[in-house]
Amino acid sequence: MGKFVMIGERIHCISPAIRDAMANKDPQPILARAKEQLDAGAAYLDVNIGPAESTGEELMKWAVKLLQENFDNVPLSLDTANKKAIEAGISVYNRSKGKPIINSANAGDRIENIDLAAANGAIIFSLCSKEGVAANNDERMAYCQEMLERGMSLGMEAEDLWFDPLFLVIKGMQEKLLEILEFIRLVTEMGLKTTGGVSNSSNGMPKNIRPIMNSALIAMSMANGLSSAIVNPCEQRLNETIRSCDIIRNNTLYADSYLEI
Amino acid sequence: MGKFVMIGERIHCISPAIRDAMANKDPQPILARAKEQLDAGAAYLDVNIGPAESTGEELMKWAVKLLQENFDNVPLSLDTANKKAIEAGISVYNRSKGKPIINSANAGDRIENIDLAAANGAIIFSLCSKEGVAANNDERMAYCQEMLERGMSLGMEAEDLWFDPLFLVIKGMQEKLLEILEFIRLVTEMGLKTTGGVSNSSNGMPKNIRPIMNSALIAMSMANGLSSAIVNPCEQRLNETIRSCDIIRNNTLYADSYLEI
Repeated sequence: MGKFVMIGERIHCISPAIRDAMANKDPQPILARAKEQLDAGAAYLDVNIGPAESTGEELMKWAVKLLQENFDNVPLSLDTANKKAIEAGISVYNRSKGKPIINSANAGDRIENIDLAAANGAIIFSLCSKEGVAANNDERMAYCQEMLERGMSLGMEAEDLWFDPLFLVIKGMQEKLLEILEFIRLVTEMGLKTTGGVSNSSNGMPKNIRPIMNSALIAMSMANGLSSAIVNPCEQRLNETIRSCDIIRNNTLYADSYLEI
Repeated sequence: MGKFVMIGERIHCISPAIRDAMANKDPQPILARAKEQLDAGAAYLDVNIGPAESTGEELMKWAVKLLQENFDNVPLSLDTANKKAIEAGISVYNRSKGKPIINSANAGDRIENIDLAAANGAIIFSLCSKEGVAANNDERMAYCQEMLERGMSLGMEAEDLWFDPLFLVIKGMQEKLLEILEFIRLVTEMGLKTTGGVSNSSNGMPKNIRPIMNSALIAMSMANGLSSAIVNPCEQRLNETIRSCDIIRNNTLYADSYLEI
């Protein structure tokens, strides 16, 4: 297994500070959030500009250039439903530190994002769902296969499809979590990469509990082979847990200072 | 999977306060440590009296009666190399809340403790080792089978042998940890129970790191099926992690108050 890939989720237009910064092309709030995530060990930064229907192309270009110029061509995950914005972002993207990621395809109405990734030499987050939540792992696996075949038929490497089981909400779907862990194991045993938004599972829980639950879940997911996740790398407990699991998985060499960044 | 079984490790003669209390038959320090572990959610208490060659029988009887009378027949794990002391403890043990555990047998010079468990209707911790550390999982599995067959040939139920992979020290044997996690999975898939002293793995690490590493490792172990562990239930982070993993494993029902004891 390779070192776990933390993808920082904090440059997201759902945050009022980031939304305003994107609207006003104000670099500072975006650069500040980039820096704190990179300092915390993020390998990739997700850039979520929302649907951005009219302004997406220009905005994504601006954001990609801003982040890569300021942070040594940091690799990025481009996160929007606007395909032209993704293409525009990739047109100015520097690959020297890693391929761009497209966030995301699924086996339903977003399947064409796999074609977009294939055409642009990108990594694609591939949600194992079609309409709503998959009923079980047979269904998840069928979607996984469908997306894998589509990507490979278009010349992609299997390692460029990162499969997301969709972390379900514990408050409401508690009995589904073991199934998700099992799915991560199945996909890992096929030699494929996995990812996901682990903190989705703690949605609706009290604020003090969420980091505790997120940490437990990411450790269990890493035991089953999870190779990356979209997380807040500044969440200390989660960050410590990921680093510790990377030691246990023998991905990084233990040193007494392994938690110091 | 059933609810994870926390076995409290803090009544141990390695602690000067407990050693003195055992020497002087002073109930208070022992009762205090029992209470704090039970309050933290321990299901069993381990009682380690050391080798106790001359005084073991009387001492174990005293400790068993003391704890069971004060804590509603709390189930106990009897931990000593002195077989007569174990027999003496069991002779006064009340089974209404759970069978006694004998801690422990291995496939080497302690294999006869399986016979002792069989003769006394006890659970036995079965270390999957013989002389020193097993070289690999084939060897661990051979020891597991040997002990399982011995116990069953003596009329034990398979569920009364709790197999311990031996959690190795990360500082020194980091590359072995994945193998141990895999072994827990193999034994779990055979329908057998598992246990172990998870915190052994963080031996030699800085004090502030140990709870972080212990928590990551127990979550990864629980993902692979670990059914119990000998732990300090008062270690808050570890305790929170175990409770969270029990939610994720769907062993306990989620409530916003699940961390409150």
